[in-house]
Amino acid sequence: MAKAQPEAAVLIIGNEILSGRTIDKNAPYIAEKLFNKGVKLVEIRVIPDIEETIIDAVRTFSKKYDYVFSTGGIGPTHDDITAEAMAKAFGVDLELNAEARDLLRRHYGSEEDLTDARLRMARIPAGAELVRNPVSGAPGFKVENVYVMAGVPSIMQAMLDQILPDLADGAPTIAFTVTAHIQESAVADVLGNIQKEYPQVDIGSYPFFKKGIFGTSIVLRGIDQGDVEAATQKVEAFLRTETNEVQRAEGMS
Amino acid sequence: MAKAQPEAAVLIIGNEILSGRTIDKNAPYIAEKLFNKGVKLVEIRVIPDIEETIIDAVRTFSKKYDYVFSTGGIGPTHDDITAEAMAKAFGVDLELNAEARDLLRRHYGSEEDLTDARLRMARIPAGAELVRNPVSGAPGFKVENVYVMAGVPSIMQAMLDQILPDLADGAPTIAFTVTAHIQESAVADVLGNIQKEYPQVDIGSYPFFKKGIFGTSIVLRGIDQGDVEAATQKVEAFLRTETNEVQRAEGMS
Repeated sequence: MAKAQPEAAVLIIGNEILSGRTIDKNAPYIAEKLFNKGVKLVEIRVIPDIEETIIDAVRTFSKKYDYVFSTGGIGPTHDDITAEAMAKAFGVDLELNAEARDLLRRHYGSEEDLTDARLRMARIPAGAELVRNPVSGAPGFKVENVYVMAGVPSIMQAMLDQILPDLADGAPTIAFTVTAHIQESAVADVLGNIQKEYPQVDIGSYPFFKKGIFGTSIVLRGIDQGDVEAATQKVEAFLRTETNEVQRAEGMS
Repeated sequence: MAKAQPEAAVLIIGNEILSGRTIDKNAPYIAEKLFNKGVKLVEIRVIPDIEETIIDAVRTFSKKYDYVFSTGGIGPTHDDITAEAMAKAFGVDLELNAEARDLLRRHYGSEEDLTDARLRMARIPAGAELVRNPVSGAPGFKVENVYVMAGVPSIMQAMLDQILPDLADGAPTIAFTVTAHIQESAVADVLGNIQKEYPQVDIGSYPFFKKGIFGTSIVLRGIDQGDVEAATQKVEAFLRTETNEVQRAEGMS
């Protein structure tokens, strides 16, 4: 039986995230898009701009998951080492890609604007397919099952938009959120039992404290509509024995 | 020679981050605090609530880095499996910790409020030291070189505040940011040469596009004040040959 949902990992490449300078916005964006596509995001790693580290992570992810998405490190400067690391990870040459060169030529307007620094951005692993960059010209690419995207969020988002239609659609995830003004510890036992009864439903419990009131949001999700609905009804039924205010919402609110 | 800066990794445990439901706020917060402490954050991983995955990641990180910080999975419900996974990762028993029980007893107010679900939060790996939780009672803990904290940001922050004074202070990082209205590709060659000349200085280049103007921020950081200052001056000198507007700020702005 084929997997109901392809599995994916995200690799955020960038010292600026690890130093605390920049708050990564790419992983949450990719997570949401993959969820809506029925692709299961299984791991996110943030790693520094170190070639060996990138190579190790990419090889591990590429073998383990159906899809890998990387962001960062494909610009023109010395710290942009992602393309070279990807080529080494897959044992192929990094070569001047004619199509990428043409895209840069058109973006910058003339041959003399194609400086050596800019041409660095046309160096692509042999055999890779390009991913267009409508914002600033320099393309991303796909090598094996790894999609290599820019780190600037607006560019990354434009690239991901093009990539998403190419991914295999997974089974859609059905999700409900049941919220009640009850402490998490008061639902723990019952929730554990419902989880055992419905092992295919992923039940998460998230306490909150808002406007002076304790509450718990219980998120139930899975790919079988009947199972998710049945488990959600059991959660609701229990909560109603404890409090009058029980709310169900679609999705993971 | 001792390392100038201890190295650390962050492990974010939680399906809700991977599904896109919740945007993680803990890793950026920890990153900033560690930077200010002179501790070098080398890797962040976000992983699901799966015992085997947690055990693998913790063992890898604990061997590789001086400090490991985990968040998430220490509440009272069935999906809170971090304490048990940590005990297994280090081959110790998960036991009812008398001090943790006492903290919960005081937080909830009476013996009869200590339900089984709540007592789950007093189950701590044998030999671990507790980390107090002034917000909601249930403590975090330190096992070997791993600090295990809650996932709720306000609680995680309160726990980290207590942990920070216990860490070895690393050499402070000196950082400057030089910003100019110049395209990144125009600085690439010179920046690469300056990086080669000062290999101990970490030079990052970050393009931006604000209010219709392209610009580049160049962040220079390292632990040797003289090196960082000298490299920064070289960057500024080059930029001034290209544009009149060159600004230096302290830190990583």
